[in-house]
Amino acid sequence: DESGIESLDYEVIENYAYWEEQAQRGKLYVGYYVMVKWFFALLIGIGTGLAAVFINLSVENFAGWKFALTFAIIQKSYVAGFLVYVLINLVLVFSSVYIVTQFAPAAAGSGIPEIKGYLNGVDMPGILLFRTLIGKIFGSIGSVGGGLALGKEGPLVHTGACIASLLGQGGSSKYHLRSRWLQIFNSDRDRRDLVTCGCAAGVSAAFRAPVGGVLFALEEVTSWWKSQLMWRVFFTSAIVAVVVRTAMGWCKSGKCGHFGSGGFIIWDISDGQEDYSFEEFLPMAVIGVIGGLLGALFNQLTFYIAYWRRNYLHKNGNRVKIIEACLISLITSIISFGLPLLRKCSPCPEADPDSGIECPRPPGMYGNYVNFYCSKDKEYNDLATIFFNTQDDAIRNLFSAKTIHEYSAQSLLTFLVMFYSLAVVTFGTAVPAGQFVPGIMIGSTYGRLVGMFVVKVYKKLNIEEGTYALLGAASFLGGSMRMTVSLCVIMVEITNNLKLLPLIMLVLLISKAVGDAFNEGLYEEQARLRSIPLLESRPKYQMRKMTAKEASGKRVISFPRVVKVADVVSILRSNNHNGFPVIDHERNGETLVIGLMLRSHLLVLLQSKVDFQHSPLPCDPRASRFLTDPLYCRHTISEFVKPASSKGLSIHDIRLSSDDLEMYIDLAPFLNPSPFIVPEDMSLTKARISFMLHLMMQVYNLFRQLGLRHIFVVPRPSRVIGLITRKDLLIEV
Amino acid sequence: DESGIESLDYEVIENYAYWEEQAQRGKLYVGYYVMVKWFFALLIGIGTGLAAVFINLSVENFAGWKFALTFAIIQKSYVAGFLVYVLINLVLVFSSVYIVTQFAPAAAGSGIPEIKGYLNGVDMPGILLFRTLIGKIFGSIGSVGGGLALGKEGPLVHTGACIASLLGQGGSSKYHLRSRWLQIFNSDRDRRDLVTCGCAAGVSAAFRAPVGGVLFALEEVTSWWKSQLMWRVFFTSAIVAVVVRTAMGWCKSGKCGHFGSGGFIIWDISDGQEDYSFEEFLPMAVIGVIGGLLGALFNQLTFYIAYWRRNYLHKNGNRVKIIEACLISLITSIISFGLPLLRKCSPCPEADPDSGIECPRPPGMYGNYVNFYCSKDKEYNDLATIFFNTQDDAIRNLFSAKTIHEYSAQSLLTFLVMFYSLAVVTFGTAVPAGQFVPGIMIGSTYGRLVGMFVVKVYKKLNIEEGTYALLGAASFLGGSMRMTVSLCVIMVEITNNLKLLPLIMLVLLISKAVGDAFNEGLYEEQARLRSIPLLESRPKYQMRKMTAKEASGKRVISFPRVVKVADVVSILRSNNHNGFPVIDHERNGETLVIGLMLRSHLLVLLQSKVDFQHSPLPCDPRASRFLTDPLYCRHTISEFVKPASSKGLSIHDIRLSSDDLEMYIDLAPFLNPSPFIVPEDMSLTKARISFMLHLMMQVYNLFRQLGLRHIFVVPRPSRVIGLITRKDLLIEV
Ligand SMILES: Nc1ncnc2c1ncn2[C@@H]1O[C@H](COP(=O)(O)OP(=O)(O)OP(=O)(O)O)[C@@H](O)[C@H]1O
Ligand SMILES: Nc1ncnc2c1ncn2[C@@H]1O[C@H](COP(=O)(O)OP(=O)(O)OP(=O)(O)O)[C@@H](O)[C@H]1O
Ligand SMILES: [Mg+2]
Ligand SMILES: [Mg+2]
Repeated sequence: DESGIESLDYEVIENYAYWEEQAQRGKLYVGYYVMVKWFFALLIGIGTGLAAVFINLSVENFAGWKFALTFAIIQKSYVAGFLVYVLINLVLVFSSVYIVTQFAPAAAGSGIPEIKGYLNGVDMPGILLFRTLIGKIFGSIGSVGGGLALGKEGPLVHTGACIASLLGQGGSSKYHLRSRWLQIFNSDRDRRDLVTCGCAAGVSAAFRAPVGGVLFALEEVTSWWKSQLMWRVFFTSAIVAVVVRTAMGWCKSGKCGHFGSGGFIIWDISDGQEDYSFEEFLPMAVIGVIGGLLGALFNQLTFYIAYWRRNYLHKNGNRVKIIEACLISLITSIISFGLPLLRKCSPCPEADPDSGIECPRPPGMYGNYVNFYCSKDKEYNDLATIFFNTQDDAIRNLFSAKTIHEYSAQSLLTFLVMFYSLAVVTFGTAVPAGQFVPGIMIGSTYGRLVGMFVVKVYKKLNIEEGTYALLGAASFLGGSMRMTVSLCVIMVEITNNLKLLPLIMLVLLISKAVGDAFNEGLYEEQARLRSIPLLESRPKYQMRKMTAKEASGKRVISFPRVVKVADVVSILRSNNHNGFPVIDHERNGETLVIGLMLRSHLLVLLQSKVDFQHSPLPCDPRASRFLTDPLYCRHTISEFVKPASSKGLSIHDIRLSSDDLEMYIDLAPFLNPSPFIVPEDMSLTKARISFMLHLMMQVYNLFRQLGLRHIFVVPRPSRVIGLITRKDLLIEV
Repeated sequence: DESGIESLDYEVIENYAYWEEQAQRGKLYVGYYVMVKWFFALLIGIGTGLAAVFINLSVENFAGWKFALTFAIIQKSYVAGFLVYVLINLVLVFSSVYIVTQFAPAAAGSGIPEIKGYLNGVDMPGILLFRTLIGKIFGSIGSVGGGLALGKEGPLVHTGACIASLLGQGGSSKYHLRSRWLQIFNSDRDRRDLVTCGCAAGVSAAFRAPVGGVLFALEEVTSWWKSQLMWRVFFTSAIVAVVVRTAMGWCKSGKCGHFGSGGFIIWDISDGQEDYSFEEFLPMAVIGVIGGLLGALFNQLTFYIAYWRRNYLHKNGNRVKIIEACLISLITSIISFGLPLLRKCSPCPEADPDSGIECPRPPGMYGNYVNFYCSKDKEYNDLATIFFNTQDDAIRNLFSAKTIHEYSAQSLLTFLVMFYSLAVVTFGTAVPAGQFVPGIMIGSTYGRLVGMFVVKVYKKLNIEEGTYALLGAASFLGGSMRMTVSLCVIMVEITNNLKLLPLIMLVLLISKAVGDAFNEGLYEEQARLRSIPLLESRPKYQMRKMTAKEASGKRVISFPRVVKVADVVSILRSNNHNGFPVIDHERNGETLVIGLMLRSHLLVLLQSKVDFQHSPLPCDPRASRFLTDPLYCRHTISEFVKPASSKGLSIHDIRLSSDDLEMYIDLAPFLNPSPFIVPEDMSLTKARISFMLHLMMQVYNLFRQLGLRHIFVVPRPSRVIGLITRKDLLIEV
């Protein structure tokens, strides 16, 4: 609890205020509500699309300008060129880490574990704030533009989620819309829907993969599923695609500086390998295994390093974080500049005028065949082509078909080892950082290595090294992130090659299985590290051995229906539970559980004080209070809503006079009258092991699939009043 | 209940037999279980893929042979050609309707509403039998090959589901695997997972759209979602794609007769329109509206006709069904042969040697520009090109780009009206029938019409009529079936054109919204007609006004823990409820709900008789019975499993002697000890309207999302024994 992580209330609290609100709403309101939802989906799409375009534009321009300048200078002096290169990188990385540490600490890292946590039902304060959004956008421009071994895709997902959450909130706090309008997205559930849209929009923007975005949101981040939402999420993704596409079309005319190429598909390899033969399955399986091993190793190493950083290094304050990032930038610059220097250049292959690939590429342009520290003009440096280049171009080169023998095995191996190490070390610095693009680079390098080997062995077959590079990329991502369907679809969408789908799938199956043998996925590991309590889709095996009563453990702290303010305060002070059962005492002495009271709602009542009463009796509906106050409820739903991404009120913030403490509150109108309940376990045979052990599995599923926060374990009921079956739920209109 | 529709038990009954079974299972078993699941997913994929290839091959060969023969004959006599054409169609349709009526009545129609029902939790007896599978495969070869206005895609989904279900069962009843092996897929829940795989495999096979298949299963048919399953479903889909692709590759060498062309993508239009401008959004929106209107009209008309058929025409027996189908075949043949005769031929456009399109197409081949009843050689009949052709080719022609001015508006309009009417009339005959391909034909016709108009109006733009045809197809399917994400993805996958995704989406948004204003989707309407009680994703508005107690209604019929056999029999005879609460009487006179007993389990107990006892006391675990019989439970789980797709035992099948009737059964070991319970509603203020009205919404969601069959409404509990939160579910290992 010290960490400030708290569950969200995805369950709608159906208290009196809620009911009043619903009753006031007409049919028109429902239509309006739906319309606003769609409108917001549109806005999220446009916003995320624009943010993505902005980030892409900036990164490409910074990086392009950097490389152009460096190349211009090294014509005269390699030392001067090196210094300029290092300096530019350093400035960019410094600005990134400075923004993040000083201004938006929650913007560090990829943000996907946090978003995953949010959609799983736990809130990490600060992750969806405006400053986080700003920090994420500008931070990732700096860190990616500065040439670190990280990507901008993860941060874009976080960006999308921030935009979505801010929109949902912005309606209420910033733009002062009409009061009935505000109340639309005030529940955690509505916000969750928006954030889901934002998350899909982020992936869609990052990879220009609308279907992949929807599937990513569905598979990787959400822990529940609503078919109504799917369509809206898809709509958002498509809007993103349209926005990005339009912006790209506009850039084609050259108005965007260094940012020019790149259409709707990022790394088009649709002209790659047409067909594959059965002999190739073996090397492909090998790629899968390598991906699983390297991916699992990556997860493990980053976990250790992040653990060490978190518990030792970063405890020393922001200055250390800044120095660390700058140091890593320095190392990265030295390696990416220095290693290609050591590499001998190769002569250009014979030109193929059809392909449009020039060797060496013309100065100041992107492309294959970088001429770097070569003695002759018609030579290129294969290591520089992948190392001393923007990531996008490096990947395009690695994926490229029809360029057999472009790379030497030695260069690829050098690159693999160095880049892998850099990626591991860079992960966890205090800058926005995604792991997709580094993963693709690592994977496609060893994929291409295997491909080269395959080309050598199976001489007769029509094999493209680029295909193997793609499979390698898929295998590494699969082995590290353990995504399945969404990753497949994203790979297909970014490469525009549907034919390779079964192969990608095969490789993913293997790499995921291999990786799962060692550890959990990257995001799960990171969530564990940050102690984000994710509920996985399957309960742990130990759950099988546990009864609901055992699981819930301690004595329950509950409230009576009418409670003294002093008691409320002392109970709230004495623990930090967030929900309390409310027990009513009937006149005949029996007790009755009438609902669940949330801590946050209690705090609102304590702060507003309007519901305090002098009498310790329940307020009688037939009494004067009802007659004078037709609405009965003095609160609107919106008062109970805690602001997004903040801790909300605390009991220590509330000041009460001693008079106040002597008063009472009747909790009945404010509690959730229909909490979820499960009967305690029955053990039929006390003598032998009880046979009713599986209840907790069921409770787990109930909890997770419905996104609950509290479940009451109650005594077995004495009778059944009614029985609901399918027929009862199908009322004919 | 007369209809034999009963809910499935997707909830696992955790009775003693189940527990015994689980306890005996080691870690190894879990691995084995997972392996078998994947193996079955593989088998389903292969099976469905082969079935699809077989159907496609047969249809193409029958149809190809038919057209080739007809064309050969009409060189001499149009009358003879017509007669032969009619006769072949008649024979094919007759064989189809004969197989279905005589042998597999459940194979009629598309089967998707039934599968949807199955995955929603209701079982229609007979839909997943082996004979249904056979009827479906051969029936759809006949009906599609016979040229009726229906498709083979819906039936393929049903075929996939049948294969999956049979595999799950086959393990148990046919191949006599070892007894521990059998018990793997014996619960309805496991079968549901398999059928989901089969369903996705069917779509994947029908459209060669693996991603679309997964999304179809997710969006359209299942009502719940497990992220673990998604990966397996996707695997199955990909296997199907591989199988189909391999078979196609094999056919390219010409070994498959008339079946030759067609690769992984069915109607490749990737060389279509590159870009679109804002002016085009208006005509596209118009297409969306038309799609919504025509789709809703289609649903309404088919509903009426199917209603009439069901309640009047088809009551007269199978002979009527056969005559009806033959009559429709006759009409279809006459129209598709006769109308092109009335149409004047157009001269061929100038040949473009690059495109490879010949005009007129060479005799005996497929392609554009059919020369039919033309006076000159260099002419073609545009109506015959779409009408007197296989559906696949007609659609390819309609979608084709670079063939502006191929069709006259008059021909397209004629075709639209005639084919729409034929599709409406054909729907509901007793043959396997899908609505995808007819929908695509109808939609692409009016789409192309709009496209022609747009080409005329916006003269300067680079517009392809084929793009509009595609959008038209999407709009009609969206307006009729109301699918969203899956339809988008299927359209993209079958046309291999990712660029059009946002346009397809726009059109679908509009057509679905327009259609929804009039009626429900095609499958929902048909499910309603067949009284399949589908639980929709959202509860009806009326649910809001209902309390759980009101919904459940009548007096509950329950059993005591130890019950007299005679009582069981009389209770089971007196009603047809499928679940009964079991109430135990404690020594102190209090009662306690100890679980839920299923009718089907009671029937098994009555039939086997081994659990009958003479004493009316609960069997004491410390008594001799436990000592002598260490397993206590004389039943294995598999005994309680009812065979798939059949009604199972009935109380009227069970014969008991009068001695038996005097004995007792202790139900405790057989009941489900952890049924779902909800507390009855509390009304705080009896004087005013109760404010606890929303409970039923919650109950509905609980019921649907967890796939329940029974929920007990119980009195409010008197105390809370424990409280479960997220923390309690996160046990650290
Ligand atoms: N009213 C209560 N009385 C007794 N024990 C409670 C009560 N509420 C919660 N607990 C127990 O205290 C522990 C932590 O409670 P807490 O309310 O902080 O839940 P949590 O899992 O941290 O979720 P949240 O994010 O809502 O705080 C859990 O083991 C829970 O069973
Ligand atoms: N044991 C019972 N005692 C009293 N009423 C019951 C009982 N079981 C079911 N009912 C009621 O009888 C009606 C129909 O019961 P039935 O058991 O046939 O359920 P159903 O909705 O048809 O589902 P199923 O497919 O399981 O048969 C429902 O309204 C239900 O509330
Ligand atoms: Mg807590
Ligand atoms: Mg029934």
